[in-house]
Amino acid sequence: MLIVTKPGISQETFEALLAEIKRQGYTPHVSEGESHTLIGAIGAPPTPELMEHFRALPGVDQVIRISKPHKLASWEVHPEPTVLDFPTGRTGNGHFMVAAGPCGVESREQILAAARYVKRHGAQMLRGGAFKPRTSPYAFQGLGREGLELLAEARAETGLPVVTEVTSPDLVDLVAEYADVLQIGARNAQNFALLKAAGGSGKPVLLKRGMSMTLDEFLMAAEYVLSEGNPQLVLVERGIRTFEKATRFTLDVSAVPVLKAQTHLPIWIDPSHAAGTREYVTPLALAGIAAGADGIIVETHPNPGEAKSDAAQQLPEEAFADLMQAVRRLLPAVDKALAVSA
Amino acid sequence: MLIVTKPGISQETFEALLAEIKRQGYTPHVSEGESHTLIGAIGAPPTPELMEHFRALPGVDQVIRISKPHKLASWEVHPEPTVLDFPTGRTGNGHFMVAAGPCGVESREQILAAARYVKRHGAQMLRGGAFKPRTSPYAFQGLGREGLELLAEARAETGLPVVTEVTSPDLVDLVAEYADVLQIGARNAQNFALLKAAGGSGKPVLLKRGMSMTLDEFLMAAEYVLSEGNPQLVLVERGIRTFEKATRFTLDVSAVPVLKAQTHLPIWIDPSHAAGTREYVTPLALAGIAAGADGIIVETHPNPGEAKSDAAQQLPEEAFADLMQAVRRLLPAVDKALAVSA
Amino acid sequence: MLIVTKPGISQETFEALLAEIKRQGYTPHVSEGESHTLIGAIGAPPTPELMEHFRALPGVDQVIRISKPHKLASWEVHPEPTVLDFPTGRTGNGHFMVAAGPCGVESREQILAAARYVKRHGAQMLRGGAFKPRTSPYAFQGLGREGLELLAEARAETGLPVVTEVTSPDLVDLVAEYADVLQIGARNAQNFALLKAAGGSGKPVLLKRGMSMTLDEFLMAAEYVLSEGNPQLVLVERGIRTFEKATRFTLDVSAVPVLKAQTHLPIWIDPSHAAGTREYVTPLALAGIAAGADGIIVETHPNPGEAKSDAAQQLPEEAFADLMQAVRRLLPAVDKALAVSA
Amino acid sequence: MLIVTKPGISQETFEALLAEIKRQGYTPHVSEGESHTLIGAIGAPPTPELMEHFRALPGVDQVIRISKPHKLASWEVHPEPTVLDFPTGRTGNGHFMVAAGPCGVESREQILAAARYVKRHGAQMLRGGAFKPRTSPYAFQGLGREGLELLAEARAETGLPVVTEVTSPDLVDLVAEYADVLQIGARNAQNFALLKAAGGSGKPVLLKRGMSMTLDEFLMAAEYVLSEGNPQLVLVERGIRTFEKATRFTLDVSAVPVLKAQTHLPIWIDPSHAAGTREYVTPLALAGIAAGADGIIVETHPNPGEAKSDAAQQLPEEAFADLMQAVRRLLPAVDKALAVSA
Repeated sequence: MLIVTKPGISQETFEALLAEIKRQGYTPHVSEGESHTLIGAIGAPPTPELMEHFRALPGVDQVIRISKPHKLASWEVHPEPTVLDFPTGRTGNGHFMVAAGPCGVESREQILAAARYVKRHGAQMLRGGAFKPRTSPYAFQGLGREGLELLAEARAETGLPVVTEVTSPDLVDLVAEYADVLQIGARNAQNFALLKAAGGSGKPVLLKRGMSMTLDEFLMAAEYVLSEGNPQLVLVERGIRTFEKATRFTLDVSAVPVLKAQTHLPIWIDPSHAAGTREYVTPLALAGIAAGADGIIVETHPNPGEAKSDAAQQLPEEAFADLMQAVRRLLPAVDKALAVSA
Repeated sequence: MLIVTKPGISQETFEALLAEIKRQGYTPHVSEGESHTLIGAIGAPPTPELMEHFRALPGVDQVIRISKPHKLASWEVHPEPTVLDFPTGRTGNGHFMVAAGPCGVESREQILAAARYVKRHGAQMLRGGAFKPRTSPYAFQGLGREGLELLAEARAETGLPVVTEVTSPDLVDLVAEYADVLQIGARNAQNFALLKAAGGSGKPVLLKRGMSMTLDEFLMAAEYVLSEGNPQLVLVERGIRTFEKATRFTLDVSAVPVLKAQTHLPIWIDPSHAAGTREYVTPLALAGIAAGADGIIVETHPNPGEAKSDAAQQLPEEAFADLMQAVRRLLPAVDKALAVSA
Repeated sequence: MLIVTKPGISQETFEALLAEIKRQGYTPHVSEGESHTLIGAIGAPPTPELMEHFRALPGVDQVIRISKPHKLASWEVHPEPTVLDFPTGRTGNGHFMVAAGPCGVESREQILAAARYVKRHGAQMLRGGAFKPRTSPYAFQGLGREGLELLAEARAETGLPVVTEVTSPDLVDLVAEYADVLQIGARNAQNFALLKAAGGSGKPVLLKRGMSMTLDEFLMAAEYVLSEGNPQLVLVERGIRTFEKATRFTLDVSAVPVLKAQTHLPIWIDPSHAAGTREYVTPLALAGIAAGADGIIVETHPNPGEAKSDAAQQLPEEAFADLMQAVRRLLPAVDKALAVSA
Repeated sequence: MLIVTKPGISQETFEALLAEIKRQGYTPHVSEGESHTLIGAIGAPPTPELMEHFRALPGVDQVIRISKPHKLASWEVHPEPTVLDFPTGRTGNGHFMVAAGPCGVESREQILAAARYVKRHGAQMLRGGAFKPRTSPYAFQGLGREGLELLAEARAETGLPVVTEVTSPDLVDLVAEYADVLQIGARNAQNFALLKAAGGSGKPVLLKRGMSMTLDEFLMAAEYVLSEGNPQLVLVERGIRTFEKATRFTLDVSAVPVLKAQTHLPIWIDPSHAAGTREYVTPLALAGIAAGADGIIVETHPNPGEAKSDAAQQLPEEAFADLMQAVRRLLPAVDKALAVSA
């Protein structure tokens, strides 16, 4: 931690600051500049509180963190890339997976039809929302438990593991009973009670980046899951909110290499929510893969015109088949392989 | 709702679109342009699903909402400004209130000291967090129930009503037992399960804008609370996330007049979280008031250097006293009055 | 300047780094942390190139500037607030000015009518564009020299000094011949050739913040003007680009106190371009004043429905009169005074 | 153009609006909703002024453009993809090019060394700045004419065409005398005087997106160049400004498919300025290619540690060679081919 003093502070204030640094268990190294003085406070990585504490003291201009605040997600603590195993494939360390399916589970026919064709075209996981977080209370909120049962039925028939969203801590047990992977959505990415509950469920978690979360905050949210003892976590870039409205969100494709430089966790891309319209889904998926992603999660619907949510961004079957073909062509050029679903 | 067709769509596709508009209970009015055709679909305000449904149909380029999606928050449904009454003052329709206190409740001494001086300097409500949503799992998470009890003790002594944050649906009953006003924080502003639970509590709710929420989304989040039958709601602008990092967030002061044009609810400003550093708190508070805010919620701590969260943005007592004096000078110039706390 | 090394660099790399720091004329102060080492490089404020040079060296993780990069705009170099004097008033150090007029000069009748009523309602300066930077090449580009002549005629009649935009270095001489103040617009805020030319003109300059400029960059743009020997400079916050589209731009009202903490230059607010629609102009103007602004520049048009640019944000005369009345009420509450135009 | 009226406007205001629509040469088609009335104004694509004119009229709530404002850049006007031909390769319609070289021309040795190795590793164009737009007036501003002469010498030796930045209209003739392609940088992307001058030069232009430009504005800036009669234009996505600071700018990779859906012009990616640090340059370049880019422009320096600008983002030779190899592997998987420089 580096503490920068304000120009012209008194000797007394400066001495009090040094004393406080020592009292907190740190060793101060002082470097005097022309206008500011730098104090390197050497010791354990500081807690956020401690940094705020120093920032609030008289005479302090800035407190700069040198070490990263996340621990369990870091390469330092876990020098091998994390790989998640599923009956149908693996993700991480060169293994690539595709999760696909409709935005929401809407009926038995719909989810079974989707499950069959996403498997046929090579996906390794089925997605579908039973509990839908919707911006408007007047919008379709999902089938709830019935949706979970339909997902389980689709898994029984196709063998595809199922990922579905959980929106509240008190639903974690219910969703974990049915799902293979718990998804936490962008709007809940800093719902810390939910992160902890999902971390404690024992199920793999797929965590989407909040739409205005920095990558550092994303890693701290990961820390909430990991610190409950759950090492099975996938981070998903799904677009951030910017001034540009030509797409629903701006896919921050740089998140892939930046996160990979800092964490051992698999990084996926969700091109559907970033695009917001189906014609841009495939280019964004390919961009994410070329940047190094370990998987994608894509929305596809047997009949998008009838979809009850996010209709415009769900691919019909043929477009999904085209996407899968493009993915299969691209992967070897970036040294990745797609598992063949049994 | 206006539907814009793609250039050069076939007559067949166009007819199918018209038929679907009618089937959904709308009357189409067609205006043909040079390249696009506009179809005004006249009928009830569309649900989000219905708009998505049309956007996903063949031949459709854009679907444009004409009417606003929020209802209960709108002036159309509620043409009188909402006023909330407390034993110490009112907010809305020209009545101005100040809520003040520390970021987190840390000890009996701390919260009682704060309650006493915020009252003495003219605030009408005490704030203080018992459950703290923190970016890092390794940061101070609040005193929990003990914090609520200390707030209740401070209320008993000073007569100030208490506002405190609730972070999870399963905590709503507990917090509502102690608090006069339930606060929902920026990171939970689209935690829909929490919004509904707070809406159902019967307690007034103070809802902060999410850091990347549009004002339309903010009003839709308000709708979640209001549609549970709870009309006592205050909306708080607390800064949005932008590229500028000189302040912790960018106070969107325009939110005040924009929201007031659309909703009858009281609008407050939180200058402390926007500023992130105490020297900018007063100018931002005054800016919000000049723009038309009905109240402010401000952080102040008897000893900021010892604060366990957000230390740098909490005002010490003297600075808070100066803020109150500046507020008192400003209010009459914008036709507002500060209640005198008994 | 602080240099942070990468974890685990070799002794050899570290020694080479220290040698290079010394070779560049700096004294290194080393503080070893657990994973990183901090090197305070003490000496003259570094040029941007030098910081980039160090950032590119092997073993370097971060290079952190401690001192601010701007000089002439800083309080250190110029400890007294800058005040600009005009025949009709002053701005800076408690003196407040209003510049008002149409977006573009469109005709003799229009600009004379505007000049007369803005003076009558108490403004001290007339604005109006002769050269218009327009997003589209197919939009009205201004009257050019004829517009300048009309502005000069309006000044001759009313006594109001004139501020008008210059869009290219080769127009500086021409515009300076007619105008009292040269305006540099947001889209040219990093047109460095133009900044230098305006700085060299000897005329006061009114520089608008670029729509995605940080405040540090804004101060560096100011430096381009000041370093040509021109001390008469006003900085104008006019809204930044964010995700929120309810207003044309997001007025960053925090810019006022943040800039005032760093520079002696007068800070103004342009509420018209931030709002984009006339109903929000007055609340934003008042917010800026309450935050500490030294002036405002406002668009008003005798007949907004006929305006050739930015029609929706220009106030008609009565609304402008109301704005001036609100400004007059507000100023004393924040210890400012409006000059009385003779 | 669609005009939406305010709720509850009088019959008189409405009639006046219809009369004005007709007076401007448009045919109104009226669709009455519950609260608003929609008026489709059918006729020629409206100028920006005309839309502003209507938006300013009494009773008008919104004016919505249906047709796109750009013309010459659009597929409607130019249904074939534009291809630019150079002695060393082509760009557009499946032809891919790489431009590479240092940020700035610093010396004869430096630029010749760079030219030789970028050619050897397969690039088709040499980049290098002679006039540098720098945020700070105290930073290296480029060698000017001498830099242009050195670029010409490097071209003479290697046969690589040269792209270099022009920063002011009065420099266009000079730069065009030496350069094969004129680059307009992000900070000048709305310097309309410069866009026109470059458009009139007869030389191909490489236009970078402004850091906070929407894609619609980018296409309008293109229109400034094209409307001077210059059809040889390349658009470059180089990262936009967002809240995320892990990279220097956020590469908006979606810009590639979005622009391709709207324009026939070649679209390139600049991964160097987006990344800001060399370790992310290759993943971003590959992402851009996978998304459909027709070329990339990359910074590489024989000795990055000695670079006078943007040192940290310039690749040393070996890293550039690795990038070219990765590009060569990727291109066939997305149906593109790299020209072989003779």
